[in-house]
Amino acid sequence: MGQILIKNAYIVTMNAKNQVYTNGSILVEDDQIIAVGKVDHQLVKNTAETINAEGKYVLPGFVNTHVHTSQQLGRGLGDDVDLLTWLHQRIWPYESNLTEEDSYISTLLCSLEQIRAGVTSFAEPGGQFVSGMVKAVSEAGLRAKLAKSVMDCGEGLPKIWQRNTQEELDQQEDDFKKYHNTADGRVQIWFGLRTIFNNSDDLIIKSKALADKYHVGLHMHVAEVKDEIDYTMEVYGEPTVTHLNRLGVLDKNFLAVHTVWLTDEEVSLFRDKQVKVSHNPAAAMRVLGFAKIPKMLKEGICVTIGTDGAPSSNRMDMVDELWLTSLIHKGWRLDPTVMKAEEILQMATKNGAQALLDEDLYGSLEVGKKADLIVINPNSASMLPLHDPIANLVTSMHSSNVESTLCNGKWLMKERIIQTLNEADILKEAKARAAAIYKRAGIDLPDRFPTITF
Amino acid sequence: MGQILIKNAYIVTMNAKNQVYTNGSILVEDDQIIAVGKVDHQLVKNTAETINAEGKYVLPGFVNTHVHTSQQLGRGLGDDVDLLTWLHQRIWPYESNLTEEDSYISTLLCSLEQIRAGVTSFAEPGGQFVSGMVKAVSEAGLRAKLAKSVMDCGEGLPKIWQRNTQEELDQQEDDFKKYHNTADGRVQIWFGLRTIFNNSDDLIIKSKALADKYHVGLHMHVAEVKDEIDYTMEVYGEPTVTHLNRLGVLDKNFLAVHTVWLTDEEVSLFRDKQVKVSHNPAAAMRVLGFAKIPKMLKEGICVTIGTDGAPSSNRMDMVDELWLTSLIHKGWRLDPTVMKAEEILQMATKNGAQALLDEDLYGSLEVGKKADLIVINPNSASMLPLHDPIANLVTSMHSSNVESTLCNGKWLMKERIIQTLNEADILKEAKARAAAIYKRAGIDLPDRFPTITF
Repeated sequence: MGQILIKNAYIVTMNAKNQVYTNGSILVEDDQIIAVGKVDHQLVKNTAETINAEGKYVLPGFVNTHVHTSQQLGRGLGDDVDLLTWLHQRIWPYESNLTEEDSYISTLLCSLEQIRAGVTSFAEPGGQFVSGMVKAVSEAGLRAKLAKSVMDCGEGLPKIWQRNTQEELDQQEDDFKKYHNTADGRVQIWFGLRTIFNNSDDLIIKSKALADKYHVGLHMHVAEVKDEIDYTMEVYGEPTVTHLNRLGVLDKNFLAVHTVWLTDEEVSLFRDKQVKVSHNPAAAMRVLGFAKIPKMLKEGICVTIGTDGAPSSNRMDMVDELWLTSLIHKGWRLDPTVMKAEEILQMATKNGAQALLDEDLYGSLEVGKKADLIVINPNSASMLPLHDPIANLVTSMHSSNVESTLCNGKWLMKERIIQTLNEADILKEAKARAAAIYKRAGIDLPDRFPTITF
Repeated sequence: MGQILIKNAYIVTMNAKNQVYTNGSILVEDDQIIAVGKVDHQLVKNTAETINAEGKYVLPGFVNTHVHTSQQLGRGLGDDVDLLTWLHQRIWPYESNLTEEDSYISTLLCSLEQIRAGVTSFAEPGGQFVSGMVKAVSEAGLRAKLAKSVMDCGEGLPKIWQRNTQEELDQQEDDFKKYHNTADGRVQIWFGLRTIFNNSDDLIIKSKALADKYHVGLHMHVAEVKDEIDYTMEVYGEPTVTHLNRLGVLDKNFLAVHTVWLTDEEVSLFRDKQVKVSHNPAAAMRVLGFAKIPKMLKEGICVTIGTDGAPSSNRMDMVDELWLTSLIHKGWRLDPTVMKAEEILQMATKNGAQALLDEDLYGSLEVGKKADLIVINPNSASMLPLHDPIANLVTSMHSSNVESTLCNGKWLMKERIIQTLNEADILKEAKARAAAIYKRAGIDLPDRFPTITF
């Protein structure tokens, strides 16, 4: 792939000291960063692609630690309805009517949105067709931790999903053996647990054992809604996190998503066990409630940011989630000094890499790390002026300011043009498939306004 | 200006019945809509500009009922700091160092962001140089209600602003006589009150009398922060809204902004007096708190949406504010069914027009109304699919989906290219002026990350 030299940039390294280099350069060779800051000209080959990034930022690619790529075709199916309607009349019918090919197209559509928002790595909590997701991510050029969404119990599940514990474990292990470390290592397989409503203790414990055996992570929705705590109190006599601790699964490789309904003692458990947290502010605002994120950060917990799925929070846009993260905790506490921009940038970059167990590979711009980076062009009426350039990245940047996205040394998007996928074809196919699934699933959304067709 | 025919569109009329026309057309002649829905071909001239909007939406232009255009060059000056630092060390030094020409450029920069986000009309609560704002809005092609931000009391005010009541009243009346109904009627002058901290009872009462005399509106920040209520309780023995009612100024032409700290009785006062409300969700989340918006809507109060100013909420983007409005009240109440997408669209269109006392002129797409409309292209990975097309406008649309903006029959933006202003020149000038004001005002923001310059 040769060399790429980006010059004259405002480089936000996110290294151990969080150093910023003004008028800095970064040199990429193949899939690696080989120089950053002041680049020795002797290192640069004649054939290097040179980018003049004057007036622009270079940042590590964002890490989206929770995104349901298989739900992308279901965007808008669950707006403004209560949780039971959302689950039983919209999401389950939709997801249980997806084919492997639908999952592939859904993941392609979601990958487009991720690349356009500056994401280079993400974690998928689990669709039904790992194969379809693997194919899409491989083609898109992104990095991902993919999993199957396993369920072995729970009321009202669609028939197609009624599987026993061993079947789910076997399926996960089978996916692992087939797909782990494919696409030049960009695609990895993790173990995925849906929620405590749908996972037996046995499945939870054994999935964790498999994650340990294979040195990968375990991704689970945890303490998401108040009803979940009511349920675990009734069934187990303790709230979700306390129960997971009793099962012995809270650990460094455990990625806990949402984590809205935690006691202070459970926050301490997360800290002690070095559990990783994925905060999804749009989904939280839409239905879940306010997680104790400022407290978690203060305790030193590795908190990261995720977008959730399109039927849960619609915009699968990390840049918007950074902005929301900066807003909601301030308003809730009436304290504009909490959740500072610099903390939020760390959550979206190096904390994300750490949660994905890849802190040695990406999340910062340093020599020897993978060339996962984004170029930000702030030259728009919506982002200028830059009195506080680091704050602007969080508080006024839009994904449309992400000019180019490089992952593993390869351009996924350059000057807003997608390089790895045929965007127009995917949009067309996605529309057709979404309409077909909607029909097949028997979903019927009411008109919000009276509609007249001419 | 001739005719513009937009064909094959999904037209969201926002008329009295909120009808939607699929595969509809809309015919504009000069500054007016002369047909909508099914257009009689005999009405269309050979010279009409014809737009095929297949697969696209047409909506009324958005109405931003609260935007500080003169603060646009101060974006990012007040991120992550407490309110007193924000006001005394950032905003007052900034605003009191603005020149008339700065105010002009700031308003141009803000106008660019408004046009790009689909706004055709806005209300400005008051900068110091109405003349500069008038010039910018005239050139941008937008509609606006402009005001001077009047202050005749309060502690710690910069010297340049220390004026007595009569001086402030005279200045307002003078601006009115000079600029009201200029630029083909697009520019109108309103009366503006800053906050109860800085406005004497006398100034409030007399400003209202002038607004009535000239048949225009009165724009005021009301019950914005908790400290304001503590202050009014101490000074007047009653909270802000109760006090304004005692002064006799709550009325149909009163536009109350933020309105976070209201008692239920004060909400009823708003309803009874037909006061208009501007809800600014980003500013609310960032520092103010949660206004009782669902309750106000239920009571039949005309609630609208505004972006506030760039140092208060950074993104001056109505599309983002629609999305935020749909999120924050749900999370706060743990009820995903409140603040439905269709209500939010009404807030941003016809409620906005009503609050600006222009319900007969715009806010809906109907024969005889002004040609203020936007074309939305949803064909992006971030907005598709459209299972619930009205919801998508609120929950997944970005301002980048606004393809074209027409105001008073004239294109302000067409296929994302600004038609009325030289965007590149304004961005360049805005950067230079922002840096100069920052220096002149003696503002010094700390580095958030250690910075090394090569």
